Amino acid sequence: RTLRIGLIPGDGIGREVIPAGRRILESLPSSLGLNFSFVDLDAGFETFQRTGSALPDKTVETLKTECDGALFGAVSSPSTKVAGYSSPIVALRKKLDLYANVRPVKTTAGSSNGKPIDLVIVRENTEDLYVKEETTRDTPDGKVAEAIKRISERASSRISTIAGEIALRRQNIRSTSNIASVHSQPMVTITHKSNVLSQTDGLFRETARQALAAAKFSSIHVEEQIVDSMVYKLFRQPEYYDVIVAPNLYGDILSDGAAALVGSLGLVPSANVGDNFAIGEPCHGSAPDIEGLGIANPIATLRSVALMLEFLGEEAAAAKIYAAVDGNLDEAKFLSPDMGGKATTTQVLEDVLKRL
Amino acid sequence: RTLRIGLIPGDGIGREVIPAGRRILESLPSSLGLNFSFVDLDAGFETFQRTGSALPDKTVETLKTECDGALFGAVSSPSTKVAGYSSPIVALRKKLDLYANVRPVKTTAGSSNGKPIDLVIVRENTEDLYVKEETTRDTPDGKVAEAIKRISERASSRISTIAGEIALRRQNIRSTSNIASVHSQPMVTITHKSNVLSQTDGLFRETARQALAAAKFSSIHVEEQIVDSMVYKLFRQPEYYDVIVAPNLYGDILSDGAAALVGSLGLVPSANVGDNFAIGEPCHGSAPDIEGLGIANPIATLRSVALMLEFLGEEAAAAKIYAAVDGNLDEAKFLSPDMGGKATTTQVLEDVLKRL
Ligand SMILES: CC(C)[C@H](C(=O)O)[C@@H](O)C(=O)O
Ligand SMILES: CC(C)[C@H](C(=O)O)[C@@H](O)C(=O)O
Repeated sequence: RTLRIGLIPGDGIGREVIPAGRRILESLPSSLGLNFSFVDLDAGFETFQRTGSALPDKTVETLKTECDGALFGAVSSPSTKVAGYSSPIVALRKKLDLYANVRPVKTTAGSSNGKPIDLVIVRENTEDLYVKEETTRDTPDGKVAEAIKRISERASSRISTIAGEIALRRQNIRSTSNIASVHSQPMVTITHKSNVLSQTDGLFRETARQALAAAKFSSIHVEEQIVDSMVYKLFRQPEYYDVIVAPNLYGDILSDGAAALVGSLGLVPSANVGDNFAIGEPCHGSAPDIEGLGIANPIATLRSVALMLEFLGEEAAAAKIYAAVDGNLDEAKFLSPDMGGKATTTQVLEDVLKRL
Repeated sequence: RTLRIGLIPGDGIGREVIPAGRRILESLPSSLGLNFSFVDLDAGFETFQRTGSALPDKTVETLKTECDGALFGAVSSPSTKVAGYSSPIVALRKKLDLYANVRPVKTTAGSSNGKPIDLVIVRENTEDLYVKEETTRDTPDGKVAEAIKRISERASSRISTIAGEIALRRQNIRSTSNIASVHSQPMVTITHKSNVLSQTDGLFRETARQALAAAKFSSIHVEEQIVDSMVYKLFRQPEYYDVIVAPNLYGDILSDGAAALVGSLGLVPSANVGDNFAIGEPCHGSAPDIEGLGIANPIATLRSVALMLEFLGEEAAAAKIYAAVDGNLDEAKFLSPDMGGKATTTQVLEDVLKRL
């Protein structure tokens, strides 16, 4: 099978980690029977400054018509408001209907300095406040701005269904993983704030409950947690959680919070997943402070490559990458500075590649 | 001076901790020249079930006409949607225009098992998604619900101003505190998500920048942090932060997150502050799991009493309470179960009272 992969480095360290993602795909053992071809695509703030558009139509069209999947690096946010600029990754998620943002957060046997954590945040990726419908009006008391938070039954249902499917899939993997689970059953925790937002988050909560009540999910233990308590519990008892499903904004916040628990955002991957497409994307940003130094941690990107492959149905290839990354972290000989090490992006990458 | 204080225990352990709050006020040394009178007031889910209203008009009227301040315990959220019920504390904040929710989070010299934390979250308390303007419509694809997130220049400006004032006030106290600050200057960190919500959170960000650029705040170092990074940084580097100012919902989430860092929500106080009124409120909820066992941690309430007094201009009385609470925590002889101890609510309270 040949997979065509769009490469969208974006800004800052995105340009240093996406090449590492390409390298690991090219280095997969040929016994897997996979071939890759690549197409370089533009997006980001630098693209905006050059072309007037942060997400050129050509990028979207090429992804839609030519590609099986893609890797997205990171984009810089301008430090002051810039007219006409808006985040290309948010637009891309909507344009390709990549409705699930899947963010696994786990410690490896060697890298866990505390409790073993092995959870996945499944974040709705197309609506909530991310519809970006905003208005501003002048009043005698000054400006008043409003934004719409939209929650639909359809999006809430499909994100909850994919969360359930991921929980079942993890259950199979778990038996072979070296991280002991505190649960014998798969678990999905529904996050919301329906004590304040009874209609919107209330709809998310009820729809998620219904979707997860389907017969195929009967082995799943379903719980819920109000978002503020969820953040609290995530920090007090992270080992307790398995799959957490959340509306877009809470998922955004929770996944950065969970990343803090495993030591570095530089470790945490994500995949933007639709019915027939997946974009791997490291959770970290463009990190202007270390841009160009060649010390960005490539692990989040390498794991995002694996996650993309998983959702493209290539689980064996994904497993190879996960194992190689875990090997690098467990040996802890080549770690980048964010992990307390001294290795460069290239050194970490080479160490992972030799374990494939 | 005689202060009249409304007591609103609410539900669950609210009824166990609010009496402790009353006791500490009654036990303040007479040398402070303060007298207190109390009025018991109803609110909460139990009140709703009994009277059909979670926040009876009489409660609001009594607070407005008779009281100088109040203590609010906690309210239960129903586990499924209940028609007509809505959170009384959210309504109270708006009806009394208590526009700032002030949540100090700190470790004491003895209770810090890691880095010393001493920060305050200043949460806008009247708008954002908490305006609770929601609608639901049926579509061929199922229900679609929408909520309004409202951000005004006026509310953003006054919350930023009070955040600046708190930063200056803390700077004076800091010199006598036993927690070393990493900063020589007071600092305010503005939290927002303007990379997605350019109008609403953009307005918050710009208004906060402007308010904090006032001459009286010239000694304050102003920074900003996007809310997801803020959660990440809060967990990685909590000792770095001083005052964090945030719109309502982010403030809600951040304060639970910060509470996790100091070991227990049972330690974290808050005050709902308006121009002439303050309600002290522990950050924890009604805790149905331990209700009636007499083991709820009263510290969050005792500190909320101090915070209320601070905003009513009684700083000397507040300082006495803070010191007594710190003494209890540092000695660590009478700690409630959430802190790993075995003491009852009453034992913790008595230990604090004897240190007044
Ligand atoms: C850059 C930003 C628009 C984005 C988001 O909020 O989704 C980022 O925080 C993420 O989590 O991918
Ligand atoms: C109970 C709930 C409505 C409330 C809020 O969201 O403000 C609580 O979480 C708080 O932080 O005081």
